[in-house]
Amino acid sequence: MTDHHTTRRTQVQEALRQKTRSVPNFPAPGVIFEDLTPVLADAEALQLLVDDLAAAATTMRAELISGLDARGFLLASAVAYKLGLGLLAIRKKGKLPPPVITKEYALEYGSAALELPRNGLDLTGKKIVLIDDVLATGGTLLAAHDLITDMGGIVAGYAVVLEVTGLNGRDRLPDAPLYVVSEP
Amino acid sequence: MTDHHTTRRTQVQEALRQKTRSVPNFPAPGVIFEDLTPVLADAEALQLLVDDLAAAATTMRAELISGLDARGFLLASAVAYKLGLGLLAIRKKGKLPPPVITKEYALEYGSAALELPRNGLDLTGKKIVLIDDVLATGGTLLAAHDLITDMGGIVAGYAVVLEVTGLNGRDRLPDAPLYVVSEP
Repeated sequence: MTDHHTTRRTQVQEALRQKTRSVPNFPAPGVIFEDLTPVLADAEALQLLVDDLAAAATTMRAELISGLDARGFLLASAVAYKLGLGLLAIRKKGKLPPPVITKEYALEYGSAALELPRNGLDLTGKKIVLIDDVLATGGTLLAAHDLITDMGGIVAGYAVVLEVTGLNGRDRLPDAPLYVVSEP
Repeated sequence: MTDHHTTRRTQVQEALRQKTRSVPNFPAPGVIFEDLTPVLADAEALQLLVDDLAAAATTMRAELISGLDARGFLLASAVAYKLGLGLLAIRKKGKLPPPVITKEYALEYGSAALELPRNGLDLTGKKIVLIDDVLATGGTLLAAHDLITDMGGIVAGYAVVLEVTGLNGRDRLPDAPLYVVSEP
């Protein structure tokens, strides 16, 4: 890790501490919702956050950047653009027209499914980095991993802004590097 | 319009023609769903699209870029990053923890509402460009406009990739420039 990287990471962590809205008991009792809206709305914080995630994706040798619907899109788009890579938008169930590939999964609260179009994409052999805002139980990232591998892609790593420790989500992720921006 | 701009626009329009998945009768009979997933997954098409939208936002003198949940996020994030501006994520109802400001609106099919956090954002006097993928009835962009003006911001323009002509959505938008990437 270079000094430059260390400095940026310290700055982005400070921006996260100052600007994240932490709201307890949303969307369910016992859950703390970390709302990054004010972080993203700050030009400098957005640049730092995207640069930090992009550096992680480069280390993971990403060939394609994937964002998880919907909050992952807010980061993955800029990371893909910055690195000159394509952006793979993984959607929640029911958002895409048929034909699609679907993967069900369990959430921290309730259950859901992720989808990708069945045609028009060639993921064969592509190294893909999955980006989301928060790692909680890991269920969403696990489903995204399985969806991508079903389509012939390779998950080269996971990059998130925050991790809810205590849920052990990282232990559920299939083997690939995990980068957490807020991690000490 | 410069020659450079004209060339880029021709290229991005060609990418849209080649890679958009147009699926009739989704999510409702009579609606054609334009799925940009394969466009965004193409590195070159993504760069062209983001550069084109960013040029439009610069012309509109954007001070903040706003993306509409969820597909607008796929474009607005990269545009904000490229321009060194903040990204204002306007969410669908129920996604944000309280307190929020809510604006109801009618969709092409059904109804919905948009939300922003009530605290942690200062939009007063800020020139904001709204970005989404498709302009249909204009209901979503209209609601976003009203939400932003309620919070003291100024909508400096609207930038979208595709327009569903025949629905006259553009006639519903409060006065500000509209940019459509696919427009001849």
